[in-house]
Amino acid sequence: MRICYVVAMVAEAKPFIERYGIQLVEDFFSPLPCQLYEGEVNGATLNVVLNGQQQGSDLIGCEAASVATLSAIQRLHPDIVVNSGTCGAFKKNGADIAQVFIGSGVMFHDRRVPGDNTWGTQSLGNYPVWEGSQELAKALGMKTGKVTTGSSLDMQPCDLEIIEKNGGELKDMEGAAVGFVCSLFNVPILYVKSVTDLCDSGAETFEEFSRNLHQACEALKVANEKVIDYLINDPKL
Amino acid sequence: MRICYVVAMVAEAKPFIERYGIQLVEDFFSPLPCQLYEGEVNGATLNVVLNGQQQGSDLIGCEAASVATLSAIQRLHPDIVVNSGTCGAFKKNGADIAQVFIGSGVMFHDRRVPGDNTWGTQSLGNYPVWEGSQELAKALGMKTGKVTTGSSLDMQPCDLEIIEKNGGELKDMEGAAVGFVCSLFNVPILYVKSVTDLCDSGAETFEEFSRNLHQACEALKVANEKVIDYLINDPKL
Repeated sequence: MRICYVVAMVAEAKPFIERYGIQLVEDFFSPLPCQLYEGEVNGATLNVVLNGQQQGSDLIGCEAASVATLSAIQRLHPDIVVNSGTCGAFKKNGADIAQVFIGSGVMFHDRRVPGDNTWGTQSLGNYPVWEGSQELAKALGMKTGKVTTGSSLDMQPCDLEIIEKNGGELKDMEGAAVGFVCSLFNVPILYVKSVTDLCDSGAETFEEFSRNLHQACEALKVANEKVIDYLINDPKL
Repeated sequence: MRICYVVAMVAEAKPFIERYGIQLVEDFFSPLPCQLYEGEVNGATLNVVLNGQQQGSDLIGCEAASVATLSAIQRLHPDIVVNSGTCGAFKKNGADIAQVFIGSGVMFHDRRVPGDNTWGTQSLGNYPVWEGSQELAKALGMKTGKVTTGSSLDMQPCDLEIIEKNGGELKDMEGAAVGFVCSLFNVPILYVKSVTDLCDSGAETFEEFSRNLHQACEALKVANEKVIDYLINDPKL
């Protein structure tokens, strides 16, 4: 079995790359900036694909996530893709900093195009998530929430309106792009998201994100250990 | 020489696919929905890569454009990528419906992330365009403008603020994603954009876009004939 994590930032992946001692496979995706880490965990192959860097910073956002996911699927043929990272969430939904959620669905909240059942529907995305996601969350005692993706760290009124109308709960910057590419190949996608900031806390997002990043990524590592154990032993995969 | 057009919608590509009589290469990108058309023009290979469809509509937006561009470059190794399609423009800059522009630069206007020289700069994009773009525009008597890309058909105040601050002129939904992927491979990218709607006309965008789509795409065909002739004879390629 091959489990492939797709992760945007080094900070998000590092604690659990170190935990498993998986190794960088140099230039695997060259000339693309994406980086591959690979190792073995209880007989399964564990891959972590990072977006890599451009202009001196870790590549974030939907275009880089599309490139990384497409490259990962085409080159590695994983049984499941796991998009793991940080997100914003809502106090009003009972979310806390460094709480880790499993995605129950995935949508875009910043692709505003008119047309029910045409471009409007396509732009929202609402791609399928791995059918075992709810069962995994239940078994591991984790909450679920719908991932909602946009290309910005902030949240404008037009974003919030779409998030509320479509039940978005876990606000990230890559999830739906990863889900879109997985949908093209019918590859199962599982979301594991750790909360760095509360969108309705009134705090400045970037400051809150930066302050909580380390704690949220440590929580992500602990959650991913359980997730990997579960996936390796899941007969559905 | 191989010239590869990356185009989102069938409506944008059809007039000029028919003009050159280039043929669909079935299942070339399978299982991806992207479609390849290929033919020969005066000794050069002309490719048109369409995003294809999902959920019953032509795939639009930055994720589909990322997938199509990555696939096109990896499989076809073009000497130049041309992103040709429709755009919004501004009356105040002197733009008219069905006027065709050459891109002088390219940026995103809906990836709001803080950080000068870090994520903020990366998120704006500002990827290089083909070095011969200005010269081509001058030779063909076409105006130039900076392409500015977002995932929505509408324009929110936060979008306009970024567009004005960074000199965006031709508002589209794919250009910067195509430019991002080209930048990863150092493949030259040329933009040819035809105006369907005026962002500052006060008209409803989707209605204006739909009304002018046919006329703008016919103008695009005429412009692309000149562009292709120019590229085939350009010693820099």
